[in-house]
Amino acid sequence: MASMAALFIKTPYPSHAHSITKFPNTHFAPTFRVSVSVPSGRIKRRLRVSSGLIEPDGGKLVELLVDEPLKDLKKREALSLPRIKLSSIDLQWVHVLSEGWASPLSGFMRESEFLQTLHFNTLRLQNGLAVNMSVPIVLAIDDSQKHLIGESTKVALFDSNNNPVAILKDIEIYKHPKEERIARTWGTTASGLPYVEEAIANAGNWLIGGDLEVLEPIKYHDGLDRFRLSPTELREEFTRRNADAVFAFQLRNPVHNGHALLMTDTRRRLLDMGYKNPILLLHPLGGYTKADDVPLSWRMKQHEKVLEDGVLDPETTVVSIFPSPMHYAGPTEVQWHAKARINAGANFYIVGRDPAGMGHPTEKRDLYDADHGKKVLSMAPGLERLNILPFKVAAYDKTQGKMAFFDASRPQDFVFISGTKMRMLAKNKENPPDGFMCPGGWKVLVEYYDSLVPTTNDKVPVAVPA
Amino acid sequence: MASMAALFIKTPYPSHAHSITKFPNTHFAPTFRVSVSVPSGRIKRRLRVSSGLIEPDGGKLVELLVDEPLKDLKKREALSLPRIKLSSIDLQWVHVLSEGWASPLSGFMRESEFLQTLHFNTLRLQNGLAVNMSVPIVLAIDDSQKHLIGESTKVALFDSNNNPVAILKDIEIYKHPKEERIARTWGTTASGLPYVEEAIANAGNWLIGGDLEVLEPIKYHDGLDRFRLSPTELREEFTRRNADAVFAFQLRNPVHNGHALLMTDTRRRLLDMGYKNPILLLHPLGGYTKADDVPLSWRMKQHEKVLEDGVLDPETTVVSIFPSPMHYAGPTEVQWHAKARINAGANFYIVGRDPAGMGHPTEKRDLYDADHGKKVLSMAPGLERLNILPFKVAAYDKTQGKMAFFDASRPQDFVFISGTKMRMLAKNKENPPDGFMCPGGWKVLVEYYDSLVPTTNDKVPVAVPA
Repeated sequence: MASMAALFIKTPYPSHAHSITKFPNTHFAPTFRVSVSVPSGRIKRRLRVSSGLIEPDGGKLVELLVDEPLKDLKKREALSLPRIKLSSIDLQWVHVLSEGWASPLSGFMRESEFLQTLHFNTLRLQNGLAVNMSVPIVLAIDDSQKHLIGESTKVALFDSNNNPVAILKDIEIYKHPKEERIARTWGTTASGLPYVEEAIANAGNWLIGGDLEVLEPIKYHDGLDRFRLSPTELREEFTRRNADAVFAFQLRNPVHNGHALLMTDTRRRLLDMGYKNPILLLHPLGGYTKADDVPLSWRMKQHEKVLEDGVLDPETTVVSIFPSPMHYAGPTEVQWHAKARINAGANFYIVGRDPAGMGHPTEKRDLYDADHGKKVLSMAPGLERLNILPFKVAAYDKTQGKMAFFDASRPQDFVFISGTKMRMLAKNKENPPDGFMCPGGWKVLVEYYDSLVPTTNDKVPVAVPA
Repeated sequence: MASMAALFIKTPYPSHAHSITKFPNTHFAPTFRVSVSVPSGRIKRRLRVSSGLIEPDGGKLVELLVDEPLKDLKKREALSLPRIKLSSIDLQWVHVLSEGWASPLSGFMRESEFLQTLHFNTLRLQNGLAVNMSVPIVLAIDDSQKHLIGESTKVALFDSNNNPVAILKDIEIYKHPKEERIARTWGTTASGLPYVEEAIANAGNWLIGGDLEVLEPIKYHDGLDRFRLSPTELREEFTRRNADAVFAFQLRNPVHNGHALLMTDTRRRLLDMGYKNPILLLHPLGGYTKADDVPLSWRMKQHEKVLEDGVLDPETTVVSIFPSPMHYAGPTEVQWHAKARINAGANFYIVGRDPAGMGHPTEKRDLYDADHGKKVLSMAPGLERLNILPFKVAAYDKTQGKMAFFDASRPQDFVFISGTKMRMLAKNKENPPDGFMCPGGWKVLVEYYDSLVPTTNDKVPVAVPA
């Protein structure tokens, strides 16, 4: 993935942080306003062409890594505290929290934050302002762990290799109302929700909140760590590129030419609005995904080919990995996806049909109305500063032999190729129509499905790393 | 109920409305601030001793009754429109909307309001401010009704006697996502939720929103209409009494001396804070309740005795009926109960243990954590102006032979008499301990249970009107 790595010519941390402080707002075009009507019910928004990167939620990016001089002390302290073993999803959340994607959250949620998230999808700050927070970021423990903690006000979090990862301090332990959490987050309690099965159903009956002190940056040692830029690093990269607008594209699927069309078209629209240098943050989700999604390593390989083949312009594109696990919670989760990108410096967010959606686990229908995601996102409290860009529908235009925006006046000319259909073609080593995806990218997909170990029953085949 | 009627010496509408306009804020004590700490997570609130009744949500009380001169015209119009027959719960919501309890809502919710309610428990106004709105106020229609409406932009709403009730205009028809509505409102989808069974499970698969024009004030002709004061009428009554604070007590159960102690103690606390004339709004819910709750007519009879017996002071108490149906949706619904009382002029709201809660319909536990209601209420966006007064726990103090605030230093002296136990005693014509409830009030309860027609199976006996 050499070509993709070239997108991130990283300069050492301190000098960049310094340059941001020293030359605030000097790289950017002057502020002016453009009127844009966004279809968001009865709410009007104003678009501001900003003179700097968007402020993080709460005004300051939270970073929870222990300062270098204190590290040894804190590690020794961790070894002396009651221990909680983290699951891989728990560790992904520690990663998310540690870098400030969930700013201003300073650790796993205490009950007041959990309840505000469930009921209002927002957290109220001391100054009375609300920031968006739609998915609970919580840590579950069971009765025996609670007993073990006893009266301690701190615990140590350990990874699956028994390495200390973090200290959680000023802890609060409260009941884990699983059914209510699931109902209010997903809008259903049907069995078979992937994240629920993976991380909630068998989790403990208590939640433990507190402030995190993370001992070392979270690394996965899977060859992809260099793509896992923190919000601070992304902001530095956008500043280095003199971005005056950053538009984020969240994805958990291979990129086809319809996506690419949308992204290049968005850049064109932003230029039309008066921005001089809009930068695309192509931001594949890197945490937990369900078994039948294409694994991260293969998706990254596919994204690399898309850039190599010139479908997206490396000069104006930053590819990075968003470390969050996936909830598949539709309109609730899309807010999290958008909010986290504000913290990474994005002031535009592209939202598609049925974002973070999936099929209903027990009924023959989609779990969410395909339009609710963008509607809810455009009305979400705490996201007023973010400009929501609804996805135009792209489909394969038979007359042009390429992906194009759907033209309702000649529907007969278009073919819709769903994710399911795309996966089936790749599995069967069939080719999609020319122009659907760049050949290099398609080859990666075919290789991926080829690599799967077939199973004798109907279960999803086991994925192998790229 | 002559004695209770005396509490509402009603002056004709127009003159009162006039006096409010003419002499704004003249009846009230000057504004000053008192610091009060409210246990609401990390949020601090300030208590303002106000110089007037609290403003309704959105600044203006919505009233949706058609002006007298237009009435005939509108009635004729209604007869020409596609018709929707209202259930009794639908009609209760028309009542609620018509008088502005849900201000600034101007009719049944359109989709953007419905989605904001489900996801955020708030509605954002044009000015960017949020008002609280936690339960969906929606009207369901089925496929055939939708077909009948066709392209019409208005429909007429008819009651069960085929009388036209209202016109719904600028309508919007959208999908009724029942499962999602239930999950997000109740935090469970377990079968057996009373409101769901009554009003959602068999309702149509579409919702119809729009602006209401209500043809006549909604009346029930049950002998209790004179107790159904609108928010405007309540505000007039509070103004007439020179109230400088109004504290609301929502209830759907008989009043015992523990409640009475709490209400008189609250008044004392408000006097201590500097208010000169705090008025209690004793506000039983009058809409749909589940089968094993004591029916409204019997509760009103019981409340009357409580006032007759001098347990509450008629001079500083207004008894009125809140026309809303009951959801039994705990922390979500308590926000609605509080918000509606702001619109009626209350600036203090007493919240108890497990407000609007009930047993889980399929598991042996309470549906909600008993403390979540008051926590959620104290953090709810849009309710910042309301002062939340958490309920102190009252129990029967054996040493004093009366209801008293529970003293944790001598728990052995207290007996807790739950609602279930109270109902069982009354059913069995047994007496509770002296001082639990005034004898007149207890007699009403015993009479009520005596009046029930026994059933042969385990079903709830049929309730008869008082």
